[in-house]
Amino acid sequence: MTSRLEGIFTPHLVPLDARGQIDEDELRRYIEWLIDRGVHGLYPNGSTGEFTRFTPDERRRIVRVVCEQARGRVPVLAGAAEANVVETLKACETYAAYGARAVAIVSPFYYKLSPESVYAYFREIATQSVIDVTLYNIPMFASPIDVPTIRRLADFPRVIGIKDSSGDLAFMMRMIAAVRPARPDFTFLTGWEAILVPMLLVGCDGGTHATSGIVPELTRQLYDLTRAGHLDQAMRLQYRLLELFDTMLYSADFPEGFRAAADLRGFAFGDSRQPLSDAQRIDRSALARLLQCILADFGVIDAPAAGCAPRAGNLQRDKVAQIAHEVIQTLRERGVV
Amino acid sequence: MTSRLEGIFTPHLVPLDARGQIDEDELRRYIEWLIDRGVHGLYPNGSTGEFTRFTPDERRRIVRVVCEQARGRVPVLAGAAEANVVETLKACETYAAYGARAVAIVSPFYYKLSPESVYAYFREIATQSVIDVTLYNIPMFASPIDVPTIRRLADFPRVIGIKDSSGDLAFMMRMIAAVRPARPDFTFLTGWEAILVPMLLVGCDGGTHATSGIVPELTRQLYDLTRAGHLDQAMRLQYRLLELFDTMLYSADFPEGFRAAADLRGFAFGDSRQPLSDAQRIDRSALARLLQCILADFGVIDAPAAGCAPRAGNLQRDKVAQIAHEVIQTLRERGVV
Amino acid sequence: MTSRLEGIFTPHLVPLDARGQIDEDELRRYIEWLIDRGVHGLYPNGSTGEFTRFTPDERRRIVRVVCEQARGRVPVLAGAAEANVVETLKACETYAAYGARAVAIVSPFYYKLSPESVYAYFREIATQSVIDVTLYNIPMFASPIDVPTIRRLADFPRVIGIKDSSGDLAFMMRMIAAVRPARPDFTFLTGWEAILVPMLLVGCDGGTHATSGIVPELTRQLYDLTRAGHLDQAMRLQYRLLELFDTMLYSADFPEGFRAAADLRGFAFGDSRQPLSDAQRIDRSALARLLQCILADFGVIDAPAAGCAPRAGNLQRDKVAQIAHEVIQTLRERGVV
Amino acid sequence: MTSRLEGIFTPHLVPLDARGQIDEDELRRYIEWLIDRGVHGLYPNGSTGEFTRFTPDERRRIVRVVCEQARGRVPVLAGAAEANVVETLKACETYAAYGARAVAIVSPFYYKLSPESVYAYFREIATQSVIDVTLYNIPMFASPIDVPTIRRLADFPRVIGIKDSSGDLAFMMRMIAAVRPARPDFTFLTGWEAILVPMLLVGCDGGTHATSGIVPELTRQLYDLTRAGHLDQAMRLQYRLLELFDTMLYSADFPEGFRAAADLRGFAFGDSRQPLSDAQRIDRSALARLLQCILADFGVIDAPAAGCAPRAGNLQRDKVAQIAHEVIQTLRERGVV
Repeated sequence: MTSRLEGIFTPHLVPLDARGQIDEDELRRYIEWLIDRGVHGLYPNGSTGEFTRFTPDERRRIVRVVCEQARGRVPVLAGAAEANVVETLKACETYAAYGARAVAIVSPFYYKLSPESVYAYFREIATQSVIDVTLYNIPMFASPIDVPTIRRLADFPRVIGIKDSSGDLAFMMRMIAAVRPARPDFTFLTGWEAILVPMLLVGCDGGTHATSGIVPELTRQLYDLTRAGHLDQAMRLQYRLLELFDTMLYSADFPEGFRAAADLRGFAFGDSRQPLSDAQRIDRSALARLLQCILADFGVIDAPAAGCAPRAGNLQRDKVAQIAHEVIQTLRERGVV
Repeated sequence: MTSRLEGIFTPHLVPLDARGQIDEDELRRYIEWLIDRGVHGLYPNGSTGEFTRFTPDERRRIVRVVCEQARGRVPVLAGAAEANVVETLKACETYAAYGARAVAIVSPFYYKLSPESVYAYFREIATQSVIDVTLYNIPMFASPIDVPTIRRLADFPRVIGIKDSSGDLAFMMRMIAAVRPARPDFTFLTGWEAILVPMLLVGCDGGTHATSGIVPELTRQLYDLTRAGHLDQAMRLQYRLLELFDTMLYSADFPEGFRAAADLRGFAFGDSRQPLSDAQRIDRSALARLLQCILADFGVIDAPAAGCAPRAGNLQRDKVAQIAHEVIQTLRERGVV
Repeated sequence: MTSRLEGIFTPHLVPLDARGQIDEDELRRYIEWLIDRGVHGLYPNGSTGEFTRFTPDERRRIVRVVCEQARGRVPVLAGAAEANVVETLKACETYAAYGARAVAIVSPFYYKLSPESVYAYFREIATQSVIDVTLYNIPMFASPIDVPTIRRLADFPRVIGIKDSSGDLAFMMRMIAAVRPARPDFTFLTGWEAILVPMLLVGCDGGTHATSGIVPELTRQLYDLTRAGHLDQAMRLQYRLLELFDTMLYSADFPEGFRAAADLRGFAFGDSRQPLSDAQRIDRSALARLLQCILADFGVIDAPAAGCAPRAGNLQRDKVAQIAHEVIQTLRERGVV
Repeated sequence: MTSRLEGIFTPHLVPLDARGQIDEDELRRYIEWLIDRGVHGLYPNGSTGEFTRFTPDERRRIVRVVCEQARGRVPVLAGAAEANVVETLKACETYAAYGARAVAIVSPFYYKLSPESVYAYFREIATQSVIDVTLYNIPMFASPIDVPTIRRLADFPRVIGIKDSSGDLAFMMRMIAAVRPARPDFTFLTGWEAILVPMLLVGCDGGTHATSGIVPELTRQLYDLTRAGHLDQAMRLQYRLLELFDTMLYSADFPEGFRAAADLRGFAFGDSRQPLSDAQRIDRSALARLLQCILADFGVIDAPAAGCAPRAGNLQRDKVAQIAHEVIQTLRERGVV
């Protein structure tokens, strides 16, 4: 199974039960739902999947469950970063055995490493991994992987692609210009769904998009419209999805906004392992109400019985005002004010 | 003359003579050359034009010369930011009298102002200016203008557009989504030519591009191809121009790389008012040789007699290596090594 | 007059009249008041003095007035940065003629220059200036001057010191370690009064402190206590001044908080040339009330007739709460709520 | 054993054997050596100890070995951050059983959390931990803990202190001013040894310093001199240690420079789990030679047989030149050039 990676891969959330443990049944139900709605692949242990908040054993379990449930219908790109090169290579081996198509390995984080150290790290993995590797560049969270380093790492056949979450379109072009001449098979995936259509236009192969875990039918439609050359329709949908994306991303600490939205699609994702303060719990319920309105506009769920206030486009200030409004309404319901 | 601003405006460089004074004849010859090669408009006193390095009187002189030379053939968007609101309004008046189509006013710089202060500053100008105003957002150099602030400022009819040099495509979409419903006439210009084609795709009206001062025939072609829907051809040209843009932008402190390239087109731009160290002078001559090779590939000038080393795409490391190579060659010629 | 620069220099504000013009009488009265209260020197055209918001002629006038009024009683360190090297050198000449002791020249701003360009810029000035030069490093606003560059520039006898507003104590130590062996006469001034006592401890010669324009008697006392070796007393005063400093610095866009405080000392500084929005005007009057309480605790002015709410130390959140409280009180007085 | 934490705690490195496994014998020998040379406490699983590069089991083993070896002679402050609150609390329990005096818990990393989320995270731990907790603020690597959040967390008796590695002296003062009135027992430790003396001057209780793992006798001396009021002598030593600190910190990716220095003290720390490229291996051997010269100046080890080049103070550029010189010398020895 050495097909090229392309399309929309879902860096899915992980449902937790009341005790904070992985809810395997709900996870399987969710994976099934995603496949049904047309995602091209699955991406367990991504940033959206809160991989750092699970233990090494839990990360393995998540990949196992996802591979089992996918049953080869869609490829699995498994996040395999562990504490060090040796542990990461062990995870690679395990995920290969589970049937993953490839692994995605985030650049070293916590310490901010120089390009030379980033290269040294990935070189070790590239020369020893038993499974294809995609680099994962997310400079807001981890040591950046710059273009010359990507070019050097593309010399290793095991490195088959990169997922970039910088959201920088010119950077995507620079990567493609540097690598594609020598490696036409190299895959470029963007993690920034706000601009998927333009990313595909410049030659990107697809994306790993948290939003595809919320509205998989719509991100698939966005991809298909673009591939079919219907750019006007695609851009209209892209603009509509931008409001949803921005609201999920900026109205709470990532990925809490996505967890709130996923619940609205009929799943019980439970509380994240990152606790919420009392103030945050109130904010979250206001956010959920707003998200319900946005999702209802797409027709994928029903609007709240109480109706929706008019929204003012992708405007953070207004969104804050709207949330403030909802907070006060919530407080009133609870008799606080 | 209240036509909508669109197309490629050139934020042109200013030629200086041996004494460091504005070389008016060369400036007129350059403006004529730009108009001949199809730029849609002219933008004196932009960042590329080193507006901060001129005195208030010199800035006026530059706009006057450009307006005179343009003679209404193309619109002039004049950079009008001065020390404070009162001085800026005086410049607005002067530039209106010179026949400028509109002014561009950069957000306050040096001090990093809050959104509320940025709003207060532009509100004063918007309510008192005698000429149409475009906001100028360049967060790497000046106080950022955020989306809610742009939305608020779009309530003033005098504010007719924004030029954004962040290079952030999603930000461009957020501005358009926030402002266009209420102001369909509002103009969005990007200052980031590396991604002009995708910017136009999402609804941007054009750009103010330093590169159009170097290869105006090519940036015009890029714009026309995109507008005509020939996206594949446009993207191929966009990729080729990326190498030129990156080399001019990253191989020397801005805008020295553009000055070096402009000389190669047959003009005598002279030394910038920002002095160069001895080491920088050597680097600059190596850079000029490299730029000559890149420009020759486009067929707009001849290659150096000594020939060109093969280049390795948009790869900074290789570019550095190439420059190092050229430096050593230069030193050899001078008998230093 | 080639005495070494040391002690506290006041980067003073500039009073403006109702038409926004320099209020020369008030400026002279203010300068007199500062000298009476023991400042060691005066620093016109600093960042606190909003030098970028004046025209070149106004900057000259400010220095002239200050030099005239000081009449040699205290040295004047004149901010002399203009649009380019030639203009800056002209200002140097003028300020020398006015009797300034030295000039302070901020690193080039707007464009973010490389260390080599910063060096080239100051080298030109260092070799041509007719008056002693202090470098001015303020990395939050202008191109940083790094330690190797300072070391190189210290080779020029005209460069007699540096004012550093980074607030980074280890950086101050690195500068001193790099420069003092070769230039024992070189002066190191800190612009970060929050930690003046520790700065003096590591070998710094003094500071240019906006706070000394508000409570000159206290910053002088702080300096004298430290120089006399009364570190315990000095640190107690340093802690008390920290609250005042933080409130002036962080409760409004710089230097508006300092303008508000200066008014409380009995001067009419008028409106800044950076306009305020309506919301900011309300905030400013609340801030003024809070500052009056803080200043009254030092015994330098009277407390407000309405009394002061208890404060909770240097705690931003509480400060915001207190301001919010004051805002509501203000709105009530105006009958708004 | 509920004594207040104060003095210098060593965030020690972990020796690895040829297979990359923890070298327990060498670790015990190292801990013994540190205690012999007067460190006040030990801090396993800190950033210097590369805690993220070990597995949860290995982190436990490290703390166990250190507690066993310390045998109560000095307190152990154990880094206890794990993947989530539940795992962290388990580690707290284990480390309490091992006899640790307290745990240090770094703010959540990878995701950049808001202050409210940072509060929620630590509140969970503060209310459930069986052992005293110190907060660990290292904004260059992890979500910042701001002053209002520290103030709120100081309401929990289990939270007994904070270790701050920002190196910002004014921030240290703000923390002390905000917390100490209500919690006079609260401990403030700095992780920025470059300015330990000034930190102690403003009221800090001590530090956790990587440098104390290299020259424990000198950092102890620095602390004792300051506490005894010999500030002049202390500052002279502080300046001398600055060169060592800067070289270890900035000449390689952290903490590789410290590993290189520790080897010079007679230990076999082996290769870090973060691999080095070939170029980095050459750099490292040059760095080791330079470090040997610096350490020899302190008299703690012998100078290299080949002698030492003169150094030029704390000047990065010169240091780079010196390293370049050493690299070339190394290459010559290997016959490469």
